[in-house]
Amino acid sequence: MSYHPQQHRVVIIGGGFGGLMAARSLNKTPTQVTLIDRRNFHLFQPLLYQVATGGLSPANIAAPLRAILKRQRNTTVLMGEVTGFDLERNEVLLADGGRIPFDSLIVAAGSTHHYFGHDDWEKWAPGLKTIEDATEIRRRVLLAFEKAERETDPRQLQRLLTFVVVGGGPTGVEMAGAIAELARHTLRADFRNFNPATARVILVEGQKRVLSAFHESLSAKAKTALEELGVEVWLNCHVTAIEADHVMVTPDGGHGPPKRIDTATVVWAAGVKASPLGKLLADAVGLQTDRMGRIPVNADCTIDNRPDIFVIGDLANCPGPDGQPLPGLAPVAMQQGEYVANLIVRRLRGESPKGPFRYFDKGMMATIGRARAVGESFGIRFSGYLAWLAWLFVHLLYITRFENRVLVLFQWFWNYVTRNRTARLITNDPCVVKA
Amino acid sequence: MSYHPQQHRVVIIGGGFGGLMAARSLNKTPTQVTLIDRRNFHLFQPLLYQVATGGLSPANIAAPLRAILKRQRNTTVLMGEVTGFDLERNEVLLADGGRIPFDSLIVAAGSTHHYFGHDDWEKWAPGLKTIEDATEIRRRVLLAFEKAERETDPRQLQRLLTFVVVGGGPTGVEMAGAIAELARHTLRADFRNFNPATARVILVEGQKRVLSAFHESLSAKAKTALEELGVEVWLNCHVTAIEADHVMVTPDGGHGPPKRIDTATVVWAAGVKASPLGKLLADAVGLQTDRMGRIPVNADCTIDNRPDIFVIGDLANCPGPDGQPLPGLAPVAMQQGEYVANLIVRRLRGESPKGPFRYFDKGMMATIGRARAVGESFGIRFSGYLAWLAWLFVHLLYITRFENRVLVLFQWFWNYVTRNRTARLITNDPCVVKA
Repeated sequence: MSYHPQQHRVVIIGGGFGGLMAARSLNKTPTQVTLIDRRNFHLFQPLLYQVATGGLSPANIAAPLRAILKRQRNTTVLMGEVTGFDLERNEVLLADGGRIPFDSLIVAAGSTHHYFGHDDWEKWAPGLKTIEDATEIRRRVLLAFEKAERETDPRQLQRLLTFVVVGGGPTGVEMAGAIAELARHTLRADFRNFNPATARVILVEGQKRVLSAFHESLSAKAKTALEELGVEVWLNCHVTAIEADHVMVTPDGGHGPPKRIDTATVVWAAGVKASPLGKLLADAVGLQTDRMGRIPVNADCTIDNRPDIFVIGDLANCPGPDGQPLPGLAPVAMQQGEYVANLIVRRLRGESPKGPFRYFDKGMMATIGRARAVGESFGIRFSGYLAWLAWLFVHLLYITRFENRVLVLFQWFWNYVTRNRTARLITNDPCVVKA
Repeated sequence: MSYHPQQHRVVIIGGGFGGLMAARSLNKTPTQVTLIDRRNFHLFQPLLYQVATGGLSPANIAAPLRAILKRQRNTTVLMGEVTGFDLERNEVLLADGGRIPFDSLIVAAGSTHHYFGHDDWEKWAPGLKTIEDATEIRRRVLLAFEKAERETDPRQLQRLLTFVVVGGGPTGVEMAGAIAELARHTLRADFRNFNPATARVILVEGQKRVLSAFHESLSAKAKTALEELGVEVWLNCHVTAIEADHVMVTPDGGHGPPKRIDTATVVWAAGVKASPLGKLLADAVGLQTDRMGRIPVNADCTIDNRPDIFVIGDLANCPGPDGQPLPGLAPVAMQQGEYVANLIVRRLRGESPKGPFRYFDKGMMATIGRARAVGESFGIRFSGYLAWLAWLFVHLLYITRFENRVLVLFQWFWNYVTRNRTARLITNDPCVVKA
């Protein structure tokens, strides 16, 4: 590959953690970068549950991509939907008929909900991936309380005040904790005809512990913390049906007698699969996706036979040191984005790659309620209030990197002191809800 | 009317400025108050244009009604849609079949857009009354710029970069100024294929001056300030057609040759009419609404033959000192709400009313862009930067009365210093826009 500094066109699909980090890492390099995203903003997904429970506004956790990249002169942002690839002409196809030519392509299209063959559940149990998902869940949760204020039938009242979160990973744990706090504290004095503290929040997890990616001792601590907040943690329980007015669960790993939970509000936090773009790309190059729709990548994040095409983040099946695919975490995507950007620049300079991609694992954290968290980092496990402060610090550090997000700190601090949630608006079709 | 302190039930329809003020004024009085609203929040409408242009988030200017009233023990908030009245049984009918009995009824249902017989224009020219209106306008304005980045046809580009605001009242002036600032300052470095400063913002007003409710000298100052921001102010121009891709205007008070403005984004700020609930109530009591759908009220805000029913705010045609109906302004509604609440309490105590409702006019203000405003108060007219500070002060004073809205101050200050607008998210159907 010869060195044409002004000509090497890098196209990046997706402005999430991976794509944005790739774009940022190409700043002041001899490349022309085009970042394509369906949305005009980068979303800090780990805090979506705060939007879904009225603690933060959408704009607190989303930054316009153009604002982030406006001073990066070699970079163009395009808002558009990628519908396919012309890999003979090296072009990305857009829904509006546009064709974007590339010399190097970075595909970082992320993931979406996975209902494991039960796509009909989505209607009653929305997942939490987009701003619209979050405001929809916020609408459903708040509307259940509003309807409860008007309900006179005790059984219907109990149904309205039962919230089910499916999936005990970080998102599910965070959602369940936040709904419990909303009911027990924020809304405490808001209603006249029922006591919001009587609301049940049930977290259903198929495995024998929550946060199964963490050490067992932290799973136990998280469970205790959830229970102290009033969350019922149902472990080893399989969801077998989700309908308008109830959820069916079989305990004991699917072997127990089925249980019915009457509920009006279900949140899906049980699984994700790769963006459909993964399949499109795999078909175009003749590769097979794995069962989660991810594309297998080489050690340098390229795909077979196409050293000019990189797949990173949730869309990539990238083996870790233990041979297992790396998890779909923001730090993985970001490190891959940086790695790939550096690799492209080294190639342009005629330098050989620095070696395969290696994930540097700084640890993981999950928060439970307003002042507790669990985490592990370099073999050290921590929990409780200090873990929550660490969680806050790490997240704010990230958020403030891109734009001044000092408002988020401020709003958090305020919520923390007052237990208030000022963003609890019911928007879009306020009066439309399932029966 | 005998004195039954625990029994006098006051039902208030609408949690806007008038209804909320009535509810607050009934705190610690011997009444049982039920406030009914379709939404779960009170909205500070004067700042909606800031949401529509990405300067503030919806939650910054909306406060949950329950949060505002949670410590007011004699008050219940119901989220519900009023669909009619049973005035023989003294009940308000809700969409869910509920019936809410009242001893006194305060109807403060507000107003909606008025297209003067051209309801088909709404599709292409949304008004600015609700949170959803504001986020929809924000979506259209921002999407026009996004599409411009991909447009190669110069004529289409110019169309995408032409924004028309219909109506030169405070809302229209504020919208036009904010769009011009967005184009000239906030988005300055955001695009690579066109210069956002080339955007045209056209404010079309049917009368011979903007802000016709203000003194002529302030109208002139406002026009100059708008023009300095880059807004074209078209006075004495009548809009005769609004289509997907253009607006037709006849200048010279409707006598000039028609002009066509090619545009992709039109905002309607030309008129409001009373909520349809006004007609329902008028029919129920056998009254006629005026041409704006308002109900004529007596000097004490009651309606004929029903001293127990009060109509206040935008829904009321309440004569002012000059015999003309009082304008649809927040202070009018708030003072009426307070007056009516006091009147009900005086009746319960067996006291005679203090006299008819009198509007105490403290003045009016409108803001133009980020640091200019015009205002008049007690015969004193002011404009420029100090007027803007006054405008900011008055609005913040109001907002902070209900809940801690210190975030709004903070965000404003930040926007002011940085000319940034962090809430410029395109949400809901991001890729759907008219051709």
